[in-house]
Amino acid sequence: MNFKLIKSEILFRGKVFDLQVDELEYNTGNRGIREIAVHPGGAVVVPVKNDGKIVMVRQFRYPFQKFFLELPAGKLDKGEDPLTCAARELEEETGYSTGDIVKLGKISTTPGFCTEVLHIYLTRNLKEGRHNREEGEYGMEILEFSPQEIEEKIIGGNIIDAKTICGIFMAKGYLS
Amino acid sequence: MNFKLIKSEILFRGKVFDLQVDELEYNTGNRGIREIAVHPGGAVVVPVKNDGKIVMVRQFRYPFQKFFLELPAGKLDKGEDPLTCAARELEEETGYSTGDIVKLGKISTTPGFCTEVLHIYLTRNLKEGRHNREEGEYGMEILEFSPQEIEEKIIGGNIIDAKTICGIFMAKGYLS
Repeated sequence: MNFKLIKSEILFRGKVFDLQVDELEYNTGNRGIREIAVHPGGAVVVPVKNDGKIVMVRQFRYPFQKFFLELPAGKLDKGEDPLTCAARELEEETGYSTGDIVKLGKISTTPGFCTEVLHIYLTRNLKEGRHNREEGEYGMEILEFSPQEIEEKIIGGNIIDAKTICGIFMAKGYLS
Repeated sequence: MNFKLIKSEILFRGKVFDLQVDELEYNTGNRGIREIAVHPGGAVVVPVKNDGKIVMVRQFRYPFQKFFLELPAGKLDKGEDPLTCAARELEEETGYSTGDIVKLGKISTTPGFCTEVLHIYLTRNLKEGRHNREEGEYGMEILEFSPQEIEEKIIGGNIIDAKTICGIFMAKGYLS
């Protein structure tokens, strides 16, 4: 390393992330600051129906005050296994449940300033059921698209959520 | 909407992002909090050399205390056009410059709690030059890979940066 840590402080403890600010000293003597959003991470699911369509959610994203089309996903509960989180969020958001779930990989959403890691899963052999959304998940809708329709929406700018684009990329070998 | 905004506060003004906390009241009378990392956004480049290889950077990511393999990218300066930012970051990080740059799209890295939008570009006909890195960009290395090697690294878990995976996905039509 070309620096040493001088001070590390949690300036805010949040429901979704904490704010950590570190002060560094470079070998040159210059000082620098690092701001970090400390996030517990989460899980993302690519739910593939027997007809090959992918189940997605349209949801209101508060920071943008807009609706986004995304794969089902959510934050890890404290100590929760990412696979359990993936199955739980799938069921809560869409009503679908499954025992057929495989890991595709993981992503870091924005590694320059945030510790968030999302674990990405593929689910098949879905069973329909009732969803169980939180009050904050206002106006959430379930929609289904073929992999080709999703790819067109990504290229056309109608899907801009990074985890969704990464999930579709990683699921490629499983999609028809 | 099923809520109204009660209060909005900037709790911290940072170099990379600000922390905004909003208090909401739902129609049911329940209250909720939204934590937002307010980020200026940035630009990402997929730099394609004449031999078809893609120029990438290996850089230290402080929140993970690890090196990540990524596409060249950086934050927008105040009032900066994303295309200008893309060309500037390419040159600063890799030394390559170009006049041949096309927009591929944009992504939202983590829309649940962060306003960051990254604009994604493809560059070709690169001219070699000298890079000009910041002190914080410790140990940065330039590496080149074929699109197929990059895809193998994504599937194999050796590239986990979301903007890089999205950039490669969006550049597909241009890569051989």
